[in-house]
Amino acid sequence: MGSFKIAVLDGDGIGPEVIKQGIKVLDRVGVRFGHTFHYHFAPVGAVAIDQTGDPLPPETLALCKESDAIFFGAIGHPRFDNDPTLKVRPEQGLLRLRKELGLYANLRPVAGYAQLTHLSPLRPERMVGVDMLIVRELTGGTYFGEKGRRDGGNTAYDTCIYSRAEVERIVQVGFEAARNRRGKLTLVDKANVMESSRLWREVTQEMAANNPDVALNYMFVDNAAMQLILNPAQFDVIVTDNLFGDILSDASSVLAGSLGLLPSSSVGAAVGMFEPIHGSWPEGAGQDRANPVATILSAAMLLDHLGLVAEGDAVRHAVNTTLESGVGTEDLHPQHKVGTNAMGDLIADAL
Amino acid sequence: MGSFKIAVLDGDGIGPEVIKQGIKVLDRVGVRFGHTFHYHFAPVGAVAIDQTGDPLPPETLALCKESDAIFFGAIGHPRFDNDPTLKVRPEQGLLRLRKELGLYANLRPVAGYAQLTHLSPLRPERMVGVDMLIVRELTGGTYFGEKGRRDGGNTAYDTCIYSRAEVERIVQVGFEAARNRRGKLTLVDKANVMESSRLWREVTQEMAANNPDVALNYMFVDNAAMQLILNPAQFDVIVTDNLFGDILSDASSVLAGSLGLLPSSSVGAAVGMFEPIHGSWPEGAGQDRANPVATILSAAMLLDHLGLVAEGDAVRHAVNTTLESGVGTEDLHPQHKVGTNAMGDLIADAL
Ligand SMILES: CC(C)[C@H](C(=O)O)[C@@H](O)C(=O)O
Ligand SMILES: CC(C)[C@H](C(=O)O)[C@@H](O)C(=O)O
Repeated sequence: MGSFKIAVLDGDGIGPEVIKQGIKVLDRVGVRFGHTFHYHFAPVGAVAIDQTGDPLPPETLALCKESDAIFFGAIGHPRFDNDPTLKVRPEQGLLRLRKELGLYANLRPVAGYAQLTHLSPLRPERMVGVDMLIVRELTGGTYFGEKGRRDGGNTAYDTCIYSRAEVERIVQVGFEAARNRRGKLTLVDKANVMESSRLWREVTQEMAANNPDVALNYMFVDNAAMQLILNPAQFDVIVTDNLFGDILSDASSVLAGSLGLLPSSSVGAAVGMFEPIHGSWPEGAGQDRANPVATILSAAMLLDHLGLVAEGDAVRHAVNTTLESGVGTEDLHPQHKVGTNAMGDLIADAL
Repeated sequence: MGSFKIAVLDGDGIGPEVIKQGIKVLDRVGVRFGHTFHYHFAPVGAVAIDQTGDPLPPETLALCKESDAIFFGAIGHPRFDNDPTLKVRPEQGLLRLRKELGLYANLRPVAGYAQLTHLSPLRPERMVGVDMLIVRELTGGTYFGEKGRRDGGNTAYDTCIYSRAEVERIVQVGFEAARNRRGKLTLVDKANVMESSRLWREVTQEMAANNPDVALNYMFVDNAAMQLILNPAQFDVIVTDNLFGDILSDASSVLAGSLGLLPSSSVGAAVGMFEPIHGSWPEGAGQDRANPVATILSAAMLLDHLGLVAEGDAVRHAVNTTLESGVGTEDLHPQHKVGTNAMGDLIADAL
């Protein structure tokens, strides 16, 4: 019986078409559970650069701040890809959005679907029981530390910097997530080399005393990169910094067999942002080929975050039923291949 | 017909027993090709801390500097594992050795053995054609940049810093390696976020003009972590910074099915160092269980580096023949299981 204002930043490439399916499903949830979602569209990324010269126009940011949630598609366009030194780039919109909204916790669940293990690059036996959540710090570290040049441009540096408060709040998210799952938290760092990692360990070790119900362990990032491939089922919740989280969450995301299946949320102080983890796939744009499942599961995370957990569960259930029936978009090599729009319809109908 | 002085830093855990097999093979090479290898043992790692309080005693460093090559086992002991804030740690020995000897290029070849694809965590079809070399920068970046605390210890930072000269020399190693292999070089970085990565791209782009025979491409590290799992056969040579190289070389090393198969070299200005990539495996130490192949293949890289390429090839050939015959240590689940020492004998006899 709620009424919610949703900022829709559908972005570039396949962003708009997958978001359309997410909205279709949210609307069906609205009908079934008696909620109203009001959608306010705003440009971000390459599309926003084209329209305004700015990947995150002030109006878009203002809209986000006054909404109940942000539903995000994808950003990026090939014309920016080969020159990362360009002054204005789509990614800057995303990074500024995270920082300005204080979205310090990026949550990326990865689970195998029993009926889709054949898609995983790993042998099927290694995928048994894989069900993890990566909690990535999103507004600190190397991404936002001081960086620049010296020696007339001939030396370049980046700073990975974390304060105790920044570490505490994200590790707290990790402990809470673990408590609501299988009770296991792994801190991934490089404490044998990095001072910032040693602060992460100190803080986490201190917090462990207040979280005796969670089994905590530590792992160096190089080992974690191996373990994710060798034995991903050992992980429940992983908490780690911005840069390690970027690398490990992408590595783990391919295990499930298709990036088109995986949602994410970025949360923090106020409003939360929900987006599929896949990119903008410009070559596939406008062709009714993209998998809308990642976006629809992001909508489920959005519902959870608004306190509508039964609604979120209903969406996840509808996705499962649909996938189990052997239907899917082309990335899933399904028995019954359907397009983006038809897949959205099937999931909405399963609600 | 050469005479060579080899510094042997066999280190901790299984280090000594695998090094013993490497020496066995080197001696057989000596007999067959008419060379003499003089071995000078020196402590490093936990063993050196126990003996002298220093993980890299001055005598060990001095020996390394006056040798033709360093043959390195493994370092690390569990009593240091759970407290990375300890003042004296085995790893420091390794890091100082790299820095003091200017070992700026770490080379890690990864290839699948046809008869061992069943050991890979990846599906067999993904392992077809996997044959890559990771070139990791080893004396710069986050490992050696300024690091410390502020705010009374409540803020911690690390600096990833690179000069043009540091980037040039390692990327040059990458171009040369690619030229001697399949002619493909991939620079892995995070140039959409990091200033140091942007310097790496600039420098590499400039150097591409002098290396027109090598096909160069760029990949963000998060994508590289995915591609190594999805399609490792796409890579020939990867060149990357110290921290990304640490993560990606470990990730790629598990693809071959056993860490016990993979050698490495660390080279630079003067003397080179050769070591198996696996760790010290303390639980397996002294039990005749460890796989000596990684160490024996490291000896082959040592021979190459001394200019004895036919000798290196002979060692690789002996390893292949032995593995093809279905013999191996327990990690390979072989038809005929043998211990560390017997495996060394078989490979030496195959020479
Ligand atoms: C586009 C890029 C800056 C971004 C990041 O590194 O955070 C992306 O890889 C992600 O993970 O959302
Ligand atoms: C022991 C550790 C400091 C070292 C590193 O990170 O370089 C190790 O992981 C390696 O790759 O040789």
